[in-house]
Parts: sequence; structure tokens; C-alpha cells
Amino acid sequence: MQATTYTPLPTSQPRPMPDALKLALQEAFGDQFSTALVVREQHGRDESAFDIAPPAAVVFAQSTQDVSDAVKLAAQYRVPVIPFGVGSSLEGHLLAVQGGISLDVSRMNAVLSINAEDLTVTVQPGVTRKQLNDEIKSTGLFFPIDPGADATIGGMSATRASGTNAVRYGTMRENVLALEVVTASGEVIRTGTRAKKSSAGYDLTRLLVGSEGTLGVITEVTVKLYPLPEAVMAATCSFNSLADAVNTTIQIIQLGVPIARCELLDDNTVRMVNAHSKLSLPESAMLLMEFHGSPDSVKEQVQTVQEIANDHGGQTFEWAETPEERTRLWTARHNAYFAGVQSRPGCKAITTDACVPISHLADALLDSVTEAQGAGLPYFLVGHVGDGNFHMGYLIDPAQPEERALAEKLNHQLVARALRLGGTCTGEHGVGLHKMDFLVSETGTGAVNMMRSIKHALDPHNIMNPGKIFSW
Amino acid sequence: MQATTYTPLPTSQPRPMPDALKLALQEAFGDQFSTALVVREQHGRDESAFDIAPPAAVVFAQSTQDVSDAVKLAAQYRVPVIPFGVGSSLEGHLLAVQGGISLDVSRMNAVLSINAEDLTVTVQPGVTRKQLNDEIKSTGLFFPIDPGADATIGGMSATRASGTNAVRYGTMRENVLALEVVTASGEVIRTGTRAKKSSAGYDLTRLLVGSEGTLGVITEVTVKLYPLPEAVMAATCSFNSLADAVNTTIQIIQLGVPIARCELLDDNTVRMVNAHSKLSLPESAMLLMEFHGSPDSVKEQVQTVQEIANDHGGQTFEWAETPEERTRLWTARHNAYFAGVQSRPGCKAITTDACVPISHLADALLDSVTEAQGAGLPYFLVGHVGDGNFHMGYLIDPAQPEERALAEKLNHQLVARALRLGGTCTGEHGVGLHKMDFLVSETGTGAVNMMRSIKHALDPHNIMNPGKIFSW
Repeated sequence: MQATTYTPLPTSQPRPMPDALKLALQEAFGDQFSTALVVREQHGRDESAFDIAPPAAVVFAQSTQDVSDAVKLAAQYRVPVIPFGVGSSLEGHLLAVQGGISLDVSRMNAVLSINAEDLTVTVQPGVTRKQLNDEIKSTGLFFPIDPGADATIGGMSATRASGTNAVRYGTMRENVLALEVVTASGEVIRTGTRAKKSSAGYDLTRLLVGSEGTLGVITEVTVKLYPLPEAVMAATCSFNSLADAVNTTIQIIQLGVPIARCELLDDNTVRMVNAHSKLSLPESAMLLMEFHGSPDSVKEQVQTVQEIANDHGGQTFEWAETPEERTRLWTARHNAYFAGVQSRPGCKAITTDACVPISHLADALLDSVTEAQGAGLPYFLVGHVGDGNFHMGYLIDPAQPEERALAEKLNHQLVARALRLGGTCTGEHGVGLHKMDFLVSETGTGAVNMMRSIKHALDPHNIMNPGKIFSW
Repeated sequence: MQATTYTPLPTSQPRPMPDALKLALQEAFGDQFSTALVVREQHGRDESAFDIAPPAAVVFAQSTQDVSDAVKLAAQYRVPVIPFGVGSSLEGHLLAVQGGISLDVSRMNAVLSINAEDLTVTVQPGVTRKQLNDEIKSTGLFFPIDPGADATIGGMSATRASGTNAVRYGTMRENVLALEVVTASGEVIRTGTRAKKSSAGYDLTRLLVGSEGTLGVITEVTVKLYPLPEAVMAATCSFNSLADAVNTTIQIIQLGVPIARCELLDDNTVRMVNAHSKLSLPESAMLLMEFHGSPDSVKEQVQTVQEIANDHGGQTFEWAETPEERTRLWTARHNAYFAGVQSRPGCKAITTDACVPISHLADALLDSVTEAQGAGLPYFLVGHVGDGNFHMGYLIDPAQPEERALAEKLNHQLVARALRLGGTCTGEHGVGLHKMDFLVSETGTGAVNMMRSIKHALDPHNIMNPGKIFSW
């Protein structure tokens, strides 16, 4: 990969949407079908910085049968189908680069069966993570995966999402047990079981998790749940420098402390968060941490982490004493993206998502910050640093092409560095439109060709979210 | 699935092994190539109860290049290639049902790079789990996955193995980060990185883990390591009935106790183990448990589990006080399979591997034992019960076809029950030859056809371990 080249905007031509297909969809779906511009525009954007024409039509599926019917019609006319949840993708997954139908599954939002005694739950794809946690509250269990946005479980599965709790509880890769999926031919298949482990053939569940809608539409998801921890403590800790905060994190992980959340903000981002969320956090590099476990285990963890932080000049922990304070703190963290975007009115964020082996986190992160500062482009910096994952958000004026070019150049330098250090271009957002070249740099032509062969075999007419992850 | 039909022995015809291919392999590999009967026979069997003609030839690979060269030659002549580690498969994975070349990777046994600060290690596929733990001893880290046999990391990856520690540390699915693989065309590809998480395209790593050699030959594996626990305590606990032991397990798991090992033996199996390993364990249903963590956390776990056991009439824990005693106990557990086989001289074991959601463990396990007792066939019973996974080993006289038929009938009843209860036919052994029909019953024709499409796309001439998992 050359640091001086960068991903061009996608230029695929939309495929035609035959009138016969529109009529057939109209007949099949009635008022669950729309070609109104306002509806199409709602389904033609996500949180990415791309500007793409909206899909030709939207179908609101209410059942697996609806999904199957819609896909069968689309397959007959070889028209693209793009699954849509709440539109929180950061990588252009939802954009109709080749036209077609946005298949909105947000109305498929039932929690189908709670198996509290097995710590599993089966949901429809449009259930959001907050809704899920509300509906299982009485069981004493929770679903920990938390990408910030109140994304759908279907969308989180499709992008192999993770977020703040992944350092302890893993990502969607580790937490999806079974799926129901409508394939490119409209067939309904099931993968996995509710058993905790299995060696029964190819791991189709894991193949479909992270396939970004390109192999099928997820219509049911079974995920793991966890007992609500007996004790939860959340704290912030401020540092004199970003390097101190990063090195504290590295040591926490290397010592095997089972910390539940370990998030980084730089001074610049703390300032944005304070302004946006009306907080008064000390405006220096900061770790936001959460500890889960028995009261004794939490005490042990806190003591170890405070000692490590002290060794790196960290201040005394500031505790979020009540659940309300905790919620306020994490809401502020989750809104860091919006705080960043709001700090420069009218801007768009070009967001990076590199993830590196923990021992290389300081190299990867600090050099990227130095480069961003040197370039003079406004940015924010947050990180699920316990996983070696961090996000720079370059805040560009979309009317200034040179700012986009500069952001993409910084992005390329950042990714190239992460790959040199044994990392990945995307820890949790997915490839989408934005990282297709990065994927080739990361994994090589051979592996991308293997992905392509699988796609060709399972979706021979390229109707499932075409133009994403890799070129056809 | 009908309980009265059962998997017939495989009847595929071996493909011819052209003399030109033998000559080419002889020329390329010299004394790393053999057609001697004794060598072929060594590579023509595993721990399964099948009787299949040995492969036509054996290649001893010493490098990825060797593997690639051998596969390219095999591809040219469309002759099967069967990767071979130490031959510990229980499901006939290594058997040359369609003839061809056994590709022995046991000489590729170098630990390539230890990244202690990232808790990862990269090894060649022929490294065994015990060798790996010996070679990393000085780092204070360990590799927990322990299927009992001293299997190779390549073989364990190929079957998605797990074993006694999986209840706490997960299976190969959760612990393989990256692979190097030689594909069916002889191309060398890489999947995954050393980063802890990634959303970079299709999860080829997880697709290849558990693919049983049917999609490629694994030539390098990067796995996670864990800090050696500060405190380790192992104990046995005897119960008045099997049901009491099972119900204790269910409650341990449902309470979220992070137990490291939770193994079950019935009274009958304890008797076999005592005879084989010269132990004097009380001959009643028994849990073997191990607890890992800080001293305080281990104390907490032990107390909780002892209380649960008491509630179910469990005896006071018998502690394995020293590392030597612990090793002796776990060696005895690992040898339960051999203890079982030895209990009936000349017998073969037909082994089951069902795994069910933990709440159904009692139903699945106790009814299967009742059936086996009713049938009057000798058996052993061990279980990674913390995962809901248990193994019945029906001990048959291979000279008595009606015993094999009876064992297969019991096996079918056991699997049918596990599937009804939301479980899987194989928790950790893989499908191999023995569970191909079960796989269809479990996951349905649609999902098996998806696996088949992937196989056809990635191995169009069906040379990679053909005749396993599903029919072509």
C-alpha cells in the first residue's frame, strides 16, 4: 500500500429497477413498500461521509417470510438488496452504490425467546441492544456488547461489532451462537445451535457474522447473555500525557486484569465531550474504566489498576458513585463522536478503526496523533484501548476536497502503520466502502480471492449488498 | 432422522494413484516420500472404529513450501490429500476413503514466535499442545486448550477441538487468531492478524478452523496464550447419584462461577480409571474440578461450588494438594478413554460427542445412560459437563456386527435427543466420517448445501480430504 494513494469514492453505476419488479413488490407488500423520495433518502444514508444516490425502493419486512419473498423477487430481476436496521453504520454499508432495494428489518423487533437458565436469548434482527437489555432486565442477565450507537442486533452481527465491553466479554464473533439467514436465493437456513460449543461442520455462523449483508439477510440471532455483575465500579483517571495513559492500559492488559471497560480520550476530545455533554472532566488525557465482578474481585482489580496508573503518573481515580453518574459518564463517552462532529459545525468525520496487538498500541496511537497534529486538521481521539483498538475522527469540511484528501492521507498512514505492527485496518466498524483497498493490503490478494470465491458461490448474481468489502 | 437407521460405513472407491504422480513426488521429496506398507498403515488409521484401506503414499512435509509443492502435484493429478498430525482423531478424519496421499506435517513442529507481551504465539501445525506448553514455560504463560490426547495444534485447529479447560478458556474457535493455509490449488494464503479483534471481511480463520482439512492444509497457527493462574486448586467430589453430580454442574454454570475445569465420570468409569491408572478414587459418580485465579478468587469459587455440591448430597472435596497429584489426577482423566477400551480386551469404542444447552444436560445425559444400561452394552461415560458436552463410549467387539449395530442405534437415539434439546451432535470431535447424517439432521439441508457450495468453490476437484463432513 502506498501512503500517497487513497480510496476513491465508489463509482459503480446503479442497476436499473424494472417497473415489473416495482409492481410485484407493490402487490406483495402494499404499504410495507415505498418509493417515496423521503423514505428512500432516509434509507440512503448512514453515519459515513459518502454521498451516494438513495436506493430505488424500500421494503419494510415484518417477518422472515417477508424477507424471503423480497429477496426472491429481487433475485428474479437481479436487483440489489441492502439490509437496513437503524442506519448507524460508519462505513457506508447501507448505501445503494448499485441501486436496488433497501430491506428495512427494523420492524422485526421481537425478542423471541429468553433462555435465562442457559444464558441465551433469540431475537429478531431489528431488536436494538438497549431494547434487548430492557426486555431481559427481570432475568438478572445482560447483553454486554455495546458499540455506542443503539444499533440493532442484526446490524451488529453483520458488522462483527464490539465496543466498550469487548475487552472483557468479546465481540459479536464470540457472542453469536446461532443465526437464521435468508440466502441470496431467498432460501431460509439455520446455522449453529444453542449449545455452547460445536464442531459440526463449517462455522457458517462465524462466516455470516461480519459478512456485511453480502451473503444473506440475518432474520434471527441467538446471542449469549451474562449474569449482571454483583458489583460494578466506574472511574476516570487523568494523566499528564497521552503516552502515560496508553502505557497504563498496556500494563493492565498484560497483567491479565479482567477489566470490563478501558476507554481512552485525549485532552482535545475531553474538551469536546465537556462542551457537548455539559461535564467538567479535567481536560487532559483520560482513561474511563469499569470493573465488574464480586465485591472482592472488583476491589482487587481496582487496587491493581490504581497501582499501575500511579506508576505512570496517573491521578487518583474519580469514581462515578451512583448508577446515574455511571450512565451519565458512559453516555458522554458514547456521544464523543457527536461531540467531535459538533465541535466543528457542518463538518463530516472520516473515522479510523485500526486495532493492533496491545504491545504496539503506544507506537500505533501516539504516532498517529503526532501526524494529525502536524497536519493541522481538527480531530477527535477515542479508543477501546484495552483491545488495542482506537478511533481518530478527522473533522473535515465536506466542501473542501483538499481536507478530505488530507484526512484520507492521514488515514492511510495510520492504517499502514497498524498493518506493519501486526494489526488490522478495522477492529469493529467493518470494511464497507471505505476500507476495500486496506483489506487487500491487510490480508493479501489470496485471502481476498478466497472471500470472493465464497461470495460468487453463494450469491452468483451479486444481489446481496453488492459493492461492499471487495470488488466483484 | 430415524432412530432405527444408522450411518453405514463409507463405501467410496479409492481414486487411482497414477505412477507419474508417484514418480514426481519421489523426485520432489526423496526420502520424505514413502509408499512402504508399514508407513502407509501408520497413516491409515486413527482412534476411530473404522477399517479403511491405507493411503497410497505418505509425504513428510518439512515446510510450507513442501506442503504447497505436494498439493500442487496432487491437484495436477486430482488425487486426494489428507493432512496428518499425530493420528489422534476419533472420527476417521485421517482415513483415506478415496485413496490418495497422507500429508504428514508432524515434522513441521517449530514454535515460530512467542509474543509474550501480547499473549500470542505462532507455531507450525505439527507442534503438539504439550510441546507448546513446555516451550513457553519460561514466559509465565500457558495454552489452555486440552483435548486429552497430545494432539497437534494444526489438528486441533482443523477439528475445532476443545476439552477440559474450554469451560473457562473457550475452544479453538475462540483461541485461534490467525492462520497460514495452503489452498486446494497449492496457493499459500494468510487469514487474520495478531490483533485481538477485527471486522476485516469474511472470517476465513473461523471458516477454516473446524473445516477438517477439506478446504486447505493449515501450515501456521497463531493462538492466544493466558497468564498462568496465580493459584490453582483441583479437587474431586463424589455423589450418591449421577443426577446429583449433573445437577451440581448445571447450578455451577448457571451461577456464573468461572470454574476452569468441570469433568464428570460415572461410577462405572471411575472403576475403569482406578484399574487403569492404579488409583483408589471412590467408585461413585464424581466431578473432577479445577479452579484458577487469584488466591482470593479461587477461595470464593471453591466455597460457592462446595455449597452447591452440599445441596446435592456431594461429599467434602478431596484436594489434589501438589502439582504432582494434580497431574496424576488429570492424566487419569485423560486416560479414561484408554481405561474404557482396556476394560474389555480387543474391543473398539464407538464414541459419542453430543453437547446441549446446560439446562438440558440432565435430560440428555441421564436418559442416554439409562438406554445404554438397558441395552446391556459395556460403556464408559466422561463429560466436559461444564460445557454441556459428554462422551459415551460404547465398547464393542468388532467381530460382532450386531454389537456395532446396537452401539450405532444407541448413538442415534442419543444424538436425536440432543438435537431435540437444542444441542449439537458434536461438541469437539468433528463430523469426519461418522456424523455426516447427523450433521444434516442438526443443521438442515440448506446449511449443508451452503457448506457444499463453499467446498465446491474452494476445492473444485475435491482433493482436500474428500468424503468427510458431507457427501460431495
